[in-house]
Amino acid sequence: MSKIAAHKVYIISGPAGVGKSTTSKELAKTFKNSAYISGDYISHMHINGRKKPWESSEEMSLIWDNILSLTKNFIKYGNDVIVDYVTFPKEAEWISENLKSLNVEVIYVVLWTDKKTLLTRDNMRLPSARMGERCVILVDEFIETGLNEKHIIDTGNTSLDDILDVINEIINNPKYKLN
Amino acid sequence: MSKIAAHKVYIISGPAGVGKSTTSKELAKTFKNSAYISGDYISHMHINGRKKPWESSEEMSLIWDNILSLTKNFIKYGNDVIVDYVTFPKEAEWISENLKSLNVEVIYVVLWTDKKTLLTRDNMRLPSARMGERCVILVDEFIETGLNEKHIIDTGNTSLDDILDVINEIINNPKYKLN
Repeated sequence: MSKIAAHKVYIISGPAGVGKSTTSKELAKTFKNSAYISGDYISHMHINGRKKPWESSEEMSLIWDNILSLTKNFIKYGNDVIVDYVTFPKEAEWISENLKSLNVEVIYVVLWTDKKTLLTRDNMRLPSARMGERCVILVDEFIETGLNEKHIIDTGNTSLDDILDVINEIINNPKYKLN
Repeated sequence: MSKIAAHKVYIISGPAGVGKSTTSKELAKTFKNSAYISGDYISHMHINGRKKPWESSEEMSLIWDNILSLTKNFIKYGNDVIVDYVTFPKEAEWISENLKSLNVEVIYVVLWTDKKTLLTRDNMRLPSARMGERCVILVDEFIETGLNEKHIIDTGNTSLDDILDVINEIINNPKYKLN
């Protein structure tokens, strides 16, 4: 008989521009006790000596160590945790593996939309925050990682065009569970 | 013979409105490898169930556990760390105690100015970010904690009216060392 998980960790992933932050923040508001971890913010706490995470495995490793530490602390204090970051399947599994002793359930969601929409949204950002070509490259990278399709939520889907529908889907559909 | 510290942790404290964030961010830019940890940001990662830290020892404990975990990770990856938060002497010593095995030097600085200046600066913030009376209460709380005067930097001091002078003082004057 499997134990009922005391707390949940939601990893909200997907390419840039797909709505990770908005979705994650709304999701965090639906639980009694919750924490919101922005991988982008964590990444930029590193000031001097920082490398682009996608070009440096050491930088990426630092970011994930920080996300894991914070997640563990928040769980210890009785919170559900929402992680908002471009997370590939291997990284989601690493988090899940490292939380095994803590009786938590890890939910891994990859938000998805077509490349044209991503580029349009990217162009609406401030120039300093634009990712340009990297938006589209990320889509291909997700496909190449052998991502199991069951983790994908296509936000371009007509039945999921409202953020609250997406939130309900994440919370109620058990197929996004990782462990 | 004392070992030469491999890395440094700067705790930049003081009442609200004294210039902690500006000073901390500038300080972080002066090192080859550095991280900037905002206690206020860390505190607000807790979304639902969050209590005011100064009214809840559990909330405060969660914040410091998070700051400590991040600090340890950043040190492990070769960074000097700047912590920007209202930090009382007992908390600075707790951090120092918990970093003992890591061969780091902890520098504890309490930025200071008169109450009138603090209230003026507070009024210049957006209404939602104003602390009001709490600015002044914090000054009294620092005095009551038995803070050793050597850790204080009075930014109203005429010889330290420029932020770069303050940064130089923090980096070069050994009297702010905690351990």
